[in-house]
Amino acid sequence: MQGIDFWFSIGSTYTYLSVMRLPDVQEKSGVLFNWRPFSVRSIMLEMDNIPFAKKPVKQAYMWRDIERRARHYGVPARLPAPYPLSEFDLANEIAVLARDEGWCEDYVRSTYKYWFQDGLEAGSDANLSKVLSEVGQDMTRVLRDARSDVVRKAYAAATDEARAKYIFGAPTFTVGEEVFWGDDRLDDAIAFVRSAGR
Amino acid sequence: MQGIDFWFSIGSTYTYLSVMRLPDVQEKSGVLFNWRPFSVRSIMLEMDNIPFAKKPVKQAYMWRDIERRARHYGVPARLPAPYPLSEFDLANEIAVLARDEGWCEDYVRSTYKYWFQDGLEAGSDANLSKVLSEVGQDMTRVLRDARSDVVRKAYAAATDEARAKYIFGAPTFTVGEEVFWGDDRLDDAIAFVRSAGR
Repeated sequence: MQGIDFWFSIGSTYTYLSVMRLPDVQEKSGVLFNWRPFSVRSIMLEMDNIPFAKKPVKQAYMWRDIERRARHYGVPARLPAPYPLSEFDLANEIAVLARDEGWCEDYVRSTYKYWFQDGLEAGSDANLSKVLSEVGQDMTRVLRDARSDVVRKAYAAATDEARAKYIFGAPTFTVGEEVFWGDDRLDDAIAFVRSAGR
Repeated sequence: MQGIDFWFSIGSTYTYLSVMRLPDVQEKSGVLFNWRPFSVRSIMLEMDNIPFAKKPVKQAYMWRDIERRARHYGVPARLPAPYPLSEFDLANEIAVLARDEGWCEDYVRSTYKYWFQDGLEAGSDANLSKVLSEVGQDMTRVLRDARSDVVRKAYAAATDEARAKYIFGAPTFTVGEEVFWGDDRLDDAIAFVRSAGR
């Protein structure tokens, strides 16, 4: 069976739901997920797609909706979490490094856990020190390598790849050229993979 | 069991899915839906919430997403349908009149059917003549009454009521103060009604 590319940016709020439930979804569905960090912020700014800043009513709804859905999935959440992120790029550059080194999923899940359950903003020193300790990485080394040219280029290349697939938001699930935007389209993506396999 | 208010504007694309599947949903769930036409366009303009105009990538995705979900629900669709509407307000003012006179659901369903299945833009003469004939209403009489002060005031009052409930998009389902935005939150709204009833 074909896998699903899971395009995410740390900083996206609804991505919390996907990050927390993907292990269970993967086990139950048998579908493999390929975790792809990219900069949804760059793409959204290019498109003038600014869903929540200066839209307080919509933002308040977003938190309430996430709260309800987190409860539905049995995922704890202390909301609203700090938002938006000051260190958006750093948090995602570390994810790019972590992907290359094989500890991406643990890093992202731990990052979201401290952000959405303990109120420690993703990408902040307070969050990073907890998370990197938890995933067994040295903070000084990680910060140095995450800011290297190699990682920055890989981050930009992933964002270019997302743009070329017409991705405009996060989380997004892709199966070949087929795009499914939002945690609430994960079931549709799985159904698509299954029907494509028949 | 408490009912659900179904806030809609003819002109919203995802509302097609809700309009077509509500009879079945109502029968299977036993939940009653109170159809509430309002001007989502007014509210979105006030909030500078412009999801698709000048966002071609997002708009193309929207049509593909609706196509997939319509197929999933077994609802026919010839997409993209003409969009956005030139006669948005007229289409909804007629819905307000129809609601007062008891033929709202039939009018809205017929309007969407000719718009999304036959390519006849909602609110256009071509759409209205087919629809009003189908629902047994005289077009001259309806156009006159829909443009009356009484209807315009009722339309504005419904929009004020939606705004006061913090509604910012369509379709929206409300249960008391609880807001569920989008056709894809209909199941959440039904679950909420059921849990509130216990």
